Amino acid sequence: MEANTTEKPTTRLSPIGPQTPPEQSRTSKSPSTAAPTAIVYCEGNFGQIDGKTANGLVRHSQAYRVLSVIDSRLAGRDSGQVLDNVSNGIPIVANINAALAREATTPDTLIYGMAPSTGTLSPTDREVVLDAIARGMNIVSGLHEYLGDDAQISSAARAASVTIRDIRKPRPSKDMRLFDGSVARVKAIRIAVLGTDCAIGKRTTATVLAKALNARGIKTVLVGTGQTGLMQGAKYGIAMDAVPPQFCCGELERVIVEASDGEEPDVILIEGQGALSHPAFCTSAFILRGSQPQGVILQHAPKRAHRCDFPNFPMPNADSEITLIEAFAGTRVVGVTINHEGMTDAEVSQAIETLSRDLGIPVTDALTRPEEQLTDMVLAAFPQLRPAPLVAAE
Amino acid sequence: MEANTTEKPTTRLSPIGPQTPPEQSRTSKSPSTAAPTAIVYCEGNFGQIDGKTANGLVRHSQAYRVLSVIDSRLAGRDSGQVLDNVSNGIPIVANINAALAREATTPDTLIYGMAPSTGTLSPTDREVVLDAIARGMNIVSGLHEYLGDDAQISSAARAASVTIRDIRKPRPSKDMRLFDGSVARVKAIRIAVLGTDCAIGKRTTATVLAKALNARGIKTVLVGTGQTGLMQGAKYGIAMDAVPPQFCCGELERVIVEASDGEEPDVILIEGQGALSHPAFCTSAFILRGSQPQGVILQHAPKRAHRCDFPNFPMPNADSEITLIEAFAGTRVVGVTINHEGMTDAEVSQAIETLSRDLGIPVTDALTRPEEQLTDMVLAAFPQLRPAPLVAAE
Repeated sequence: MEANTTEKPTTRLSPIGPQTPPEQSRTSKSPSTAAPTAIVYCEGNFGQIDGKTANGLVRHSQAYRVLSVIDSRLAGRDSGQVLDNVSNGIPIVANINAALAREATTPDTLIYGMAPSTGTLSPTDREVVLDAIARGMNIVSGLHEYLGDDAQISSAARAASVTIRDIRKPRPSKDMRLFDGSVARVKAIRIAVLGTDCAIGKRTTATVLAKALNARGIKTVLVGTGQTGLMQGAKYGIAMDAVPPQFCCGELERVIVEASDGEEPDVILIEGQGALSHPAFCTSAFILRGSQPQGVILQHAPKRAHRCDFPNFPMPNADSEITLIEAFAGTRVVGVTINHEGMTDAEVSQAIETLSRDLGIPVTDALTRPEEQLTDMVLAAFPQLRPAPLVAAE
Repeated sequence: MEANTTEKPTTRLSPIGPQTPPEQSRTSKSPSTAAPTAIVYCEGNFGQIDGKTANGLVRHSQAYRVLSVIDSRLAGRDSGQVLDNVSNGIPIVANINAALAREATTPDTLIYGMAPSTGTLSPTDREVVLDAIARGMNIVSGLHEYLGDDAQISSAARAASVTIRDIRKPRPSKDMRLFDGSVARVKAIRIAVLGTDCAIGKRTTATVLAKALNARGIKTVLVGTGQTGLMQGAKYGIAMDAVPPQFCCGELERVIVEASDGEEPDVILIEGQGALSHPAFCTSAFILRGSQPQGVILQHAPKRAHRCDFPNFPMPNADSEITLIEAFAGTRVVGVTINHEGMTDAEVSQAIETLSRDLGIPVTDALTRPEEQLTDMVLAAFPQLRPAPLVAAE
């Protein structure tokens, strides 16, 4: 969160943009050398939507030092090149043998880097996990199926004296708390970054915005709500999709209050999940109730034809989603951010112009347009936020 | 579901109505004699909101034969008198010793009959559960804290060779499924019974309506979504508040499709949970997405001053909740049903008149007004439903 860059990335637009657009990746290249080393397993999915955990980790990881990615389809390529056309020095390899052959010592961790919508482990994946355990590697997983509860895997882990970290496993029910309204006492302005679909770049835009606001002297904390952000090392977060609905609003409120007490920020950004309109994934309902945000930023992919993983479910347009969000919660959508997948730069410019005119609110692309457009979106909505003079002078 | 009564209850209105109004209780007095016998533990809460599981069970239970209720405050009274001013022959006793003293043999089951909003077990309750286990009784619980996962309780259960049934414990994640839109192929008209608060009588109204529609020859199945309905023996149901949000819409869809395939009904009623507007409990968002109902009936308590268990959260009015529901989902509210708590009969009549005029839709009280008003609400909205001639003639 202490980013000090104001670099404006204007040349990283892929002809066909990645599903989850790239972050400012400076920190991803320099995690602490004390961080555990990790191989990210993403067979058949790297760079694609269901590989979003791996995609996120090679772009940004504070908690693990990522050594390589396993995806035999792309073996030999640089993972940064595949995602963002910019080398990051993290190679893609064919399998676990190839990954280990590159290292002097066995890496500490195998991270299961896929987020299949089913949330479960395939038989092939199971073999890979058991192989890594046998080689003495700890396992990190964001699956809904908790690997630590699997008899075969947990017994193998005990035998090999390795640990299994199930990112999504919530705290015991008896330790979870109900919403009690204490979020209303939080002084920071709360902005939820929602979207019109799953895997559309909400977390990425929120990460870019948090860095940019901090760079302008507006202290900002990002509260993660998904497994990728938690794996990346988010200090404040909760895997909402795995918390019993009874406690969803309360547990998110708890994390926001903790972030407020711990950091005393000016702004708290809250990562959305799915889409409020989504027929299958509307956890954003709990996010809006639990965080009670004063503002919402909506991430939208104008060229996406149907809901991710649901070819029969059409995408909503930005206008209908904004109407829905503002009808559902006492908040307002203060701007739209674009996921440029499938778009040329000229099409992005056109979409920004058309949407901002039609919706009457600012529109930008967090990755291909100047960061000031993103921060100005927040400052226009909340003029009580005062950027530090050194950057305000631009 | 095979109710054959058309009795119109017009004299059961309490001066201060019960929090969950009484059902047609004919079946509650005659569960199968083969059903396991049960004592319902509800210390300090019988007849109150957090005792809603016990309240529901003494009114209606297909799965268990309820022998007595434990609540020392009310020991010596008849549980039906306490709830509904009508004796049901199920006594309230002071403690487990008093409950056992009444029986020739030890009852099969102790049902934990409270639904505290925290979802967890108090130290005193723990002693009672352990005592019942030591006496050889099986345990049934709807708590979020799974008693079967508690080391002390599960080890005691093993030692005593009794079972623990955690009603809310969902299926393993790997067996749960995602929403896939198959609910759209269900032929039955789907009507969700939502409400403006928790513990306001949604399940009760839905139960009365299901019986009344069946009595008029319109085959109707009620899909339960809470632990009380499941304990009562609902054939189709799921404890939504304990299903991971990722699977909430899909698991509800699965149950609805199963009810459709298994019963081929004309109407499927879906029990709501909490309130769509509720800051802490908005599981109804998933219920609307997962069931895709063509209509909604809204249960409302005009005299309730604040959200149940949340003295600082004011109640919404019926109008705002209807606007919210119709903005959130592609459905329409076809009628309002009143929870008459705190109301005289004259006030109920006044509320029905005022609300129906202001909202422009039918309004009734499922318990104190003729059942035809409730069924006519559905028939007016869905004229394609044809009641059987024998009752349609009245």
